[in-house]
Formats: sequence, structure tokens, C-alpha cells
Amino acid sequence: MSADTDNKILAALGDAMRHRRVALGFSQETFAEAVGLHRTYVGSVERGERNVSLVNLSRIAGALGLRTSELLMLAEEEMDNDGRRMETDCT
Amino acid sequence: MSADTDNKILAALGDAMRHRRVALGFSQETFAEAVGLHRTYVGSVERGERNVSLVNLSRIAGALGLRTSELLMLAEEEMDNDGRRMETDCT
Repeated sequence: MSADTDNKILAALGDAMRHRRVALGFSQETFAEAVGLHRTYVGSVERGERNVSLVNLSRIAGALGLRTSELLMLAEEEMDNDGRRMETDCT
Repeated sequence: MSADTDNKILAALGDAMRHRRVALGFSQETFAEAVGLHRTYVGSVERGERNVSLVNLSRIAGALGLRTSELLMLAEEEMDNDGRRMETDCT
């Protein structure tokens, strides 16, 4: 798997996480408190800058009211949508 | 989330990964080569000893012919089954 693909899943996870957090009405700060992680850490995960671990993924998913697999599914949807947007851009 | 819950998801991921790898007929060594990780690393993930990162999770899932969310779903099934086994033990 290429570094590009690696970055895509981190960026997609960040997008899925932010969309769900905002939809639930959490600020980054209140969300970070709920999940027991630092706000700057949550911010860097949302920007796709962190290669987040399974334990933190599972904590984040829990605070978003999701199973870890469901959060990953939302991230995969973000990647699929991104792929479709790029195809549209090219035609 | 407690350290116990943290360990459970790592152990369940390891079990799901090993079951799928064996079902596909990979040895730990050939699988490690396919995924581009060291055999001892793969072994420690399968024993639930590593807090594996999203990038490695996604590589492992890919080599198992799964999306990352599907691998996590198998891990969650392992956790659910384990819970049921424990309930049975208690009655």
C-alpha cells in the first residue's frame, strides 16, 4: 500500500469523525473531554495528521455513539465519495 | 473506557485476524510478507499485544481481502461471542 493510500484513510477518518462530531453538536473541546483525549490531539486526528491507534479509534467511536467498524465504514464512505468527486473533476 | 476494554478490542482483533489468515491458507510468515510487515510484528498483533495503528490495520485488512471496517466487524463479533461465552460460564 502506498503512502498516498495511507494518508487517504487518515484524512477520511478525520473527515468522518468531524462530520459526526458536528452532527452531534459537540465542540472539539467538549468532544475531547468526553473521549478523555487532549483537544489538540483530537484536532490533529480530524486533520488526518495522526496515525491513530486502535485503542484511541475505539474510544473515539464510542464517544460518537458508534462501534469502531461503523466509524471506519463512515471513513470508507468519505474515501469513496472523494474518489467519485475526482472522477467527476476529470471528465 | 477501561484498560480492560482496551485490551479486549486488541485481543479480539488478533483473533479475527488469525482466523481469517488461517482460513485463507496463509502461514504467519507468508502473510507477513504479503502485508509488508515483520513476522514478529504480525505475531504480536495476533496475540493482542500491540496497539496497532490505523495505517497498519488498513494494510492488514487489505492483505486479508477485507475493508478495514469489515476486519473490525469480525473483531467485534469475536468480542460479542466472547461476552456470550462468559455469560454461559456464569449460569
